[in-house]
Amino acid sequence: MNKATKTAISPTRAEDYPEWYQQVIKAADLAESSPVRGCMVIKPWGYALWENMQRVLDGMFKATGHQNAYFPLFIPLSYLEREAQHVEGFAKECAVVTHHRLEPDPAGGLRPTAPLEEPLIVRPTSETIIGAMYAKWVQSYRDLPILINQWANVVRWEMRTRLFLRTAEFLWQEGHTVHATREEAIEETLRMLDAYAEFAEQWMAMPVIKGEKTPRERFPGADMTVAIEAMMQDRKALQAGTSHFLGQNFARAQEIRYQDVNGELQYAWTTSWGVSTRLIGALIMTHSDDDGLILPPKLAPAHAVILPIYRDNEARPAVLEYCRRLQRDLQQVMFAGGTLRVEIDDRDLRGGEKKWQHVKRGVPLRLEIGQRDIEQDAVMVGRRDGEKPALMPRESLLSNVVQILDEMQQGMFRRALTLREEHTRTIDNVADFRAYFTPKDQDQPEIHGGFALAHFADEEDLQDLLGELKVTIRCIPLDQSDEPGKCFLTGKPAAKYAIFAKAY
Amino acid sequence: MNKATKTAISPTRAEDYPEWYQQVIKAADLAESSPVRGCMVIKPWGYALWENMQRVLDGMFKATGHQNAYFPLFIPLSYLEREAQHVEGFAKECAVVTHHRLEPDPAGGLRPTAPLEEPLIVRPTSETIIGAMYAKWVQSYRDLPILINQWANVVRWEMRTRLFLRTAEFLWQEGHTVHATREEAIEETLRMLDAYAEFAEQWMAMPVIKGEKTPRERFPGADMTVAIEAMMQDRKALQAGTSHFLGQNFARAQEIRYQDVNGELQYAWTTSWGVSTRLIGALIMTHSDDDGLILPPKLAPAHAVILPIYRDNEARPAVLEYCRRLQRDLQQVMFAGGTLRVEIDDRDLRGGEKKWQHVKRGVPLRLEIGQRDIEQDAVMVGRRDGEKPALMPRESLLSNVVQILDEMQQGMFRRALTLREEHTRTIDNVADFRAYFTPKDQDQPEIHGGFALAHFADEEDLQDLLGELKVTIRCIPLDQSDEPGKCFLTGKPAAKYAIFAKAY
Repeated sequence: MNKATKTAISPTRAEDYPEWYQQVIKAADLAESSPVRGCMVIKPWGYALWENMQRVLDGMFKATGHQNAYFPLFIPLSYLEREAQHVEGFAKECAVVTHHRLEPDPAGGLRPTAPLEEPLIVRPTSETIIGAMYAKWVQSYRDLPILINQWANVVRWEMRTRLFLRTAEFLWQEGHTVHATREEAIEETLRMLDAYAEFAEQWMAMPVIKGEKTPRERFPGADMTVAIEAMMQDRKALQAGTSHFLGQNFARAQEIRYQDVNGELQYAWTTSWGVSTRLIGALIMTHSDDDGLILPPKLAPAHAVILPIYRDNEARPAVLEYCRRLQRDLQQVMFAGGTLRVEIDDRDLRGGEKKWQHVKRGVPLRLEIGQRDIEQDAVMVGRRDGEKPALMPRESLLSNVVQILDEMQQGMFRRALTLREEHTRTIDNVADFRAYFTPKDQDQPEIHGGFALAHFADEEDLQDLLGELKVTIRCIPLDQSDEPGKCFLTGKPAAKYAIFAKAY
Repeated sequence: MNKATKTAISPTRAEDYPEWYQQVIKAADLAESSPVRGCMVIKPWGYALWENMQRVLDGMFKATGHQNAYFPLFIPLSYLEREAQHVEGFAKECAVVTHHRLEPDPAGGLRPTAPLEEPLIVRPTSETIIGAMYAKWVQSYRDLPILINQWANVVRWEMRTRLFLRTAEFLWQEGHTVHATREEAIEETLRMLDAYAEFAEQWMAMPVIKGEKTPRERFPGADMTVAIEAMMQDRKALQAGTSHFLGQNFARAQEIRYQDVNGELQYAWTTSWGVSTRLIGALIMTHSDDDGLILPPKLAPAHAVILPIYRDNEARPAVLEYCRRLQRDLQQVMFAGGTLRVEIDDRDLRGGEKKWQHVKRGVPLRLEIGQRDIEQDAVMVGRRDGEKPALMPRESLLSNVVQILDEMQQGMFRRALTLREEHTRTIDNVADFRAYFTPKDQDQPEIHGGFALAHFADEEDLQDLLGELKVTIRCIPLDQSDEPGKCFLTGKPAAKYAIFAKAY
């Protein structure tokens, strides 16, 4: 093979980043489009990754006092209408159930009959239906806080969809909490943002910036939205999780009130927060390379795959027996809150093809075992992060495997952080800003500067410029010095800087 | 209190069984109705029970080689129509999405706009959409078997709903498999029925009978449906899980074909199987009593609750410290594939009220700890299964707690089995059959015989009688002697007997 065709994924990231993304998903068998417009099928390898994410996040939610529950898929139209900004934000993308029966159509086939008295919206998010229940459950300050999460599917009828990143139906979790005071609700909003940041950095090996959204970018109906933003390898930003302080807006719209210690009736304060299968898209675009998926070991559905190598059926039993023993031993090793997940791939398939399947799926470790290795009691260890395969004594593999996986996990985080740092720049004037977001090379329209840190005074002043450059204000980082500056465009005094970027 | 009001749940089972069921759910805070017709809210205690059920079932599915995946919520109408019997079976209860936008209505409020080209059905079950994907995935015999399960919500627009037992939306798992041969598919169908039976008996402590459904009671589109049937305390039957051998019906309707070893194109053989949140209804009705919910220890969200008892705030720290230490020690104890789940309830609430809350929620063990108990290093152990509370030395509790819980679990199974055996009768003539299913007491119209085992030749002969008595053929038990008999109604020769019962 010559250099140009040496990658397992075609096109490469440099050649066509969006198409590379689709091909990585296909090669790793994570998901595919379905016959239903905009809806995807999450295939077993992709779903196992989601299950691992769920398990960790669910543990974090429970450790912070939350419980799971389940609320209806459907929201009566009148409930959605109760919060004006909220319904306005979602009206354009609502799937509406209008009938509840099918009957033979005189023209052939079946047609919907039995119209509903009131149309039902397939939940795009559940503030309004959950709030209606909370209004019944909350009577007194003693009933607060309510700390509930739900794992669910939601539907937003998007016109342009993309696997994991933007689909009509997606899976997510949505936390919905009720508090007696404003302070407590804000504390909860930020606590869950911290949980998301910890998950992104410690588990997904994806560095994120915590920040507040500007009013234009807030969740419809929220007083404050905070988010974690990550940089993908094409230097675009991806919002990976959001947490909303809803003030008393939904409490007023839905009459969530409680009697305080003095017996007076007060409106409660609510929050909501969520992450979705979009995280899988973020993970793919943060770490994968031109050979396919790379999985952070802590979340990999399989940490290692054992590949038995033998020439003939006579050699097979001894090799397989050795492999099974290694599998059993590895499965005893504790890693990332569980034990190692180890597969043996004994399919009758050419060795090269088999190896590349696991490379493309992103399995962190490939352990090749042939007859000669057994004689030496050693294993050929291939690492998905590009280190050269090396022969390791079995015992040394067993005692070092956790360290190797940890090292891979940390290496992935460092590489992603370095990329972000190399492509983040402070900018204080419009000429630089414009140049930063203008692709240098017409053949690579995707490649631009990255993240710009720039002070601004009023987002309304910036809309024309941002629209022209297709740049958005990602967030105002929470962690920034208090040194004021001037708006890079208008020169007005500005208290804070924001991250500007092109975004998914 | 006098005897008549001594129960925590009113009415009692004897007074009004259906209403007792609703009140048990309310008192245990498992679920409640929502403002959306027929849709329920599963509250944290109910959802935690479902999570425990999911964890065990999911482990069983994975241990038998299945993987999880996720398929779209929506099914295009034309896909549902592909299998004629199938669509006929579900047409009357389909929620239909017809529009994908909301716009201001001149009359005020919003109205659905942007009609879909083709209506989408909210999945009542997913054979057709999953089959459409399988048709793409299956090319050769090497691709088989496909063994996939999905955890999902489904919608069946039922007119008369009841919490957990029959709701418009419910949560379930649906396994969908594809095989090269008829034999393999039948084997899979029965294997999953066995898994359900094992789960019901070993985990839910609910004895079940495995049997085949008659043609009238089959899943729409199936060649064979097998099910597990349980007896509730009112002697009615409840179908707790079903497994379907779909023959080649769906494979033909959807073109699921594979090239066999000889290179010839063959239709595949498929199965599907599912259990749902209905299992929670079955669990409640099998075990609960007039004081509320009784949970099988293996599935209880909390195995024990510790109740600290102290007179004043001065005594509190020492009592609480002792309780926390006991909690930590208990949490180290392995039980049912995990560690014990132990709560401390230190709410400021009258002791009696607090105790009864946990009785009504069905927590297996209540551990009361007062100052005097601490001096003796002993704990007052209250068991939900009615054994008298007893003072136990702390050490003895720790070393015996698993045995106690196992004993409770087995006791529950035995009681349920005894009830079923006491109310199961072999019947060979119509007079006895009629008497068996006719309530003796007009004040207790619910109370009738129970399960009747009776030979029958052709279910069509029986329809008038069964309709009149509101009795159904539950199943033809798989495990029965081959001794033929005669139809209890017509006297025709009959190869097998069936279980007849009133049913949920």
